[in-house]
Amino acid sequence: MPETAWNHRFIDANGIRVHYVRHGAGTPIVLLHGWPEFWYTWHKNILPLAEHFDVIVPDLRGFGDSDKPELPVEQGYGLAIMVEDLKALADGLGLERFGIISHDCGSFITRHFALKYPQRVTGLFFFDCPYPGIGKRFLDPHYQAQCWYRAFNQLPWAAQMVGHSRETCRLYFEHFLRHWAGTPDAFDKQDIEMWVDNFMKPGNLQGGFNWYIAYNAIRLREMEQGPPASPERIRAPTRMLWGENDAIFKVEWADGIDDYFADIRLDTVAGAGHFMHYEMPDFANGEIMKFFQGL
Amino acid sequence: MPETAWNHRFIDANGIRVHYVRHGAGTPIVLLHGWPEFWYTWHKNILPLAEHFDVIVPDLRGFGDSDKPELPVEQGYGLAIMVEDLKALADGLGLERFGIISHDCGSFITRHFALKYPQRVTGLFFFDCPYPGIGKRFLDPHYQAQCWYRAFNQLPWAAQMVGHSRETCRLYFEHFLRHWAGTPDAFDKQDIEMWVDNFMKPGNLQGGFNWYIAYNAIRLREMEQGPPASPERIRAPTRMLWGENDAIFKVEWADGIDDYFADIRLDTVAGAGHFMHYEMPDFANGEIMKFFQGL
Repeated sequence: MPETAWNHRFIDANGIRVHYVRHGAGTPIVLLHGWPEFWYTWHKNILPLAEHFDVIVPDLRGFGDSDKPELPVEQGYGLAIMVEDLKALADGLGLERFGIISHDCGSFITRHFALKYPQRVTGLFFFDCPYPGIGKRFLDPHYQAQCWYRAFNQLPWAAQMVGHSRETCRLYFEHFLRHWAGTPDAFDKQDIEMWVDNFMKPGNLQGGFNWYIAYNAIRLREMEQGPPASPERIRAPTRMLWGENDAIFKVEWADGIDDYFADIRLDTVAGAGHFMHYEMPDFANGEIMKFFQGL
Repeated sequence: MPETAWNHRFIDANGIRVHYVRHGAGTPIVLLHGWPEFWYTWHKNILPLAEHFDVIVPDLRGFGDSDKPELPVEQGYGLAIMVEDLKALADGLGLERFGIISHDCGSFITRHFALKYPQRVTGLFFFDCPYPGIGKRFLDPHYQAQCWYRAFNQLPWAAQMVGHSRETCRLYFEHFLRHWAGTPDAFDKQDIEMWVDNFMKPGNLQGGFNWYIAYNAIRLREMEQGPPASPERIRAPTRMLWGENDAIFKVEWADGIDDYFADIRLDTVAGAGHFMHYEMPDFANGEIMKFFQGL
């Protein structure tokens, strides 16, 4: 589909200009991307879902064509701010209640949004779900080979190094897209160039890295203290698919998910990696439709 | 001192061509560098020490102007091979017994050399000393911000990214030199360019990274299992200085060092970082002289 055929929209929300793509009509569903992603990660999902739903796909603050305010990250990019971004987007679009489909960074925002504004969500759909139950397992010695980028992304010179040229940018993101996917060739060359185009836009590298800087204190606490004794449970109907080949959020870490979701159905998916919506779009779209149509 | 005034030498040892610099006469001492270093890290130490000793400063296998054999890292770059490199260098130069001064990667080699060939060493001098007693403390959540490079350096595309241009190479190594030193301006700009010159030589980035690939299995085991119950102790007289500001090998981790060295005197040094020999050359040279002249 040519770039011009997408319905690009902008809205002022929570003090920033948010870019989103919107197609279809009906029950609203919002698709939240992760890192290193942007709205386009859902490009195989938007039109099929738009045959049944009002599909809204924002770029998170700092990402894609949404604003990247030059604020200290604590003020500009914290999880609480991202939650308010989502509320302001929904308010601005007049969405009283809506479904959320998310993974990776998007999952963090969705979990916290669903706890703070439970009356606003119809249902939650996750492809993997980083959550406090992972806890100290992020410190497994063998996981050191996976999680290094969380520290690297916080370095003050990381954007300069990755963004030195299209080649360095491609090396960096191609690594994550290939390595985290269930199969190394899940992303085609043309899409990888779309990723490079996106992250080479001014501010986009640092915008994404700001997530890691802003989220670091929470992650440190979870690694130090482990899961909270009595986590508050999300009551919204929840469907979760977790790729059995996800290299970065390991499927066995889903074992404590019932402590965080009161009404969840979880399945693990053989052959799927971190980007299930992209790797297996037909399957993913079918599961999303079944879930939201069944609510 | 102009580059041409150094006594550059080469010797065939353990199947590779080893580069070393040699100055002075008297009791032989060998200076072993770490990562990201090469012989030149000792350039403030060589001539002052050469007034009293026969000072031999090799580039480790993979580093500087020593060979970087294109072998699988298990065969080409393991710790056992590096130990044999040192023995072959000493044999080739006719050094029956000699002192060793080392830190960082050099310390690993020195420890294992001193255990395998105790009759060859007169004394050992360390600036910091990574050793199995650090164990699981490498997994402290706050240390994640420090140790990421050990995973990054093992990535198959790391050398391509860091070596993309002099600028990316400078960004990478300037980070470690400034961040690990006790003060961020310990390395002058001219020396940082020497580091860039060195690591931009063909094969030198991967040569250094091979250390991390080859050493990974040992490090994993130490993080998983913690220190061995009854480590074999090194009997050679040992002097150790550990910088209190060393960001990568934390001074408090020296607490178990007596289990590994039978005859050690350890002092911590206020204001010193990872590169004490470079940061405080007069003090470092004085301590080295006192130790080896007192044996």
